[in-house]
Amino acid sequence: MKFAQIGAPGAEQPVLVHGDRHYSLQSITPAINGDFLSNGGPAAAAAALAAGTLPDITSDDVRYGAPVVRPSAVVCVGLNYAAHAAESGAQPPEHPVIFLKTPNTVGGPDDAVAIPRGSTKTDWEVELGIVIGKRASYLDSPEAARDHIGGFVVVDDLSERDFQLNVSGGQWSKGKSSPGFCPTGPYLVTPDEVDAGKLRLRSWVNGEIRQDSSTADMIFDVGTIVWNLSQYMVLEPGDLICTGTPEGVALSGRFPYLKAGDVVEIEVEGLGRQRHEFIA
Amino acid sequence: MKFAQIGAPGAEQPVLVHGDRHYSLQSITPAINGDFLSNGGPAAAAAALAAGTLPDITSDDVRYGAPVVRPSAVVCVGLNYAAHAAESGAQPPEHPVIFLKTPNTVGGPDDAVAIPRGSTKTDWEVELGIVIGKRASYLDSPEAARDHIGGFVVVDDLSERDFQLNVSGGQWSKGKSSPGFCPTGPYLVTPDEVDAGKLRLRSWVNGEIRQDSSTADMIFDVGTIVWNLSQYMVLEPGDLICTGTPEGVALSGRFPYLKAGDVVEIEVEGLGRQRHEFIA
Repeated sequence: MKFAQIGAPGAEQPVLVHGDRHYSLQSITPAINGDFLSNGGPAAAAAALAAGTLPDITSDDVRYGAPVVRPSAVVCVGLNYAAHAAESGAQPPEHPVIFLKTPNTVGGPDDAVAIPRGSTKTDWEVELGIVIGKRASYLDSPEAARDHIGGFVVVDDLSERDFQLNVSGGQWSKGKSSPGFCPTGPYLVTPDEVDAGKLRLRSWVNGEIRQDSSTADMIFDVGTIVWNLSQYMVLEPGDLICTGTPEGVALSGRFPYLKAGDVVEIEVEGLGRQRHEFIA
Repeated sequence: MKFAQIGAPGAEQPVLVHGDRHYSLQSITPAINGDFLSNGGPAAAAAALAAGTLPDITSDDVRYGAPVVRPSAVVCVGLNYAAHAAESGAQPPEHPVIFLKTPNTVGGPDDAVAIPRGSTKTDWEVELGIVIGKRASYLDSPEAARDHIGGFVVVDDLSERDFQLNVSGGQWSKGKSSPGFCPTGPYLVTPDEVDAGKLRLRSWVNGEIRQDSSTADMIFDVGTIVWNLSQYMVLEPGDLICTGTPEGVALSGRFPYLKAGDVVEIEVEGLGRQRHEFIA
């Protein structure tokens, strides 16, 4: 199944996306959130769709918000593709490298993003995002971790490289948490619909391809990531995990950093596509 | 004024602490949170206290929860005391070094804390905590930032040094986010009640002094911290900022790390005292 949240910022309503139709889920949940995912919401939505009780609210003019409301945490995995580690000047990691973004960075997939004040190095990162469906703490194995995944999303883990690398003693979060720096969606896709281990993921800037890789190239796969994180923190339903980006970002030196007027598009196979313009 | 939240975990109620009395604030707010702090809650509480309309619910047997409910972010400043930077093997930073803890680490000041599974290096860090009272984004100056502070709290920024330094490529959050790793409180004290720039802060393990310093020794003061962070992220009402710890932690090599059965006490002058036991 595919879920989304549509409407004006702050006034989104939850929908089930079925073919080209949007069915309202307001009779089942106020939002696509941790409660919905962990308390049988997807099954209830499927049953209601089959029973024909969900209002069809399809319209031509839709704004997508993030397909999960404010997570309690946004956890990111760094350097999870060997070629990206190399272009960043780093060795492939032996353990998942993790850092956090503030949850208020999460925004809709097509919302404009402001270049942060003082920024000279705003950079894109297409990523496969995991949304936690069930509380995860000290899980037994990567296999067991898969049961705790509620779905997958497209995420742009936007980064300001000077803030990330030069003004916080090497701790990255300062360059990862600017307003709007986590465009998410458009869809939350349940795990049965995709093979998270082999999804093509791509990014473009002003129509020119930048990244073109596959989640098959991840160093740590989604089960390993969730299992590993659960040894160090409690993952809550609705939490978002960004699983790392492949090669082809501006940090490599091969492409210019973003400026106002640039348009970034990113896509993960089966999960949808984002298009966001950068503004001053 | 002093605010607190008292009651069983997950069922705390907000109170105003006045002398040795606890007055219920349930007629004014469901919790001490960002809405309360940013929408005139403290002034309403003061007026109700003066009018004698707050029920006195003082009792001898009180559990304190964290004095602010689940922040949207817990932002920490690292190496903010020169002597602690030295004992950590680091230079004093030129810019505030920041990292994040997951917000679900926040717990009551006296709650038992589990030594994380696999931990060999669990460490204490007494800190002055800032609670944001008003949304902060691109503030003009450290002086202007002071208007955005809702209050101060005692925080133990608990850390697992092996997780922090050795299994996440040098990114610290993995060693900062174990369950219960952010004991907070007992009180949220409004800025008019203390001089945040010269508060004695101390920690003890099993009754032996470990840290004894003053916030006067901070490299970056509270106004500078809030102003600096606001250039890189949006701080929301209710967010918690841990301002760094002085020398005297186990990482220095001078003291053993924590084990089950150890009792940590920490105190910041004017803000109260915590006592938490470590369990397996």
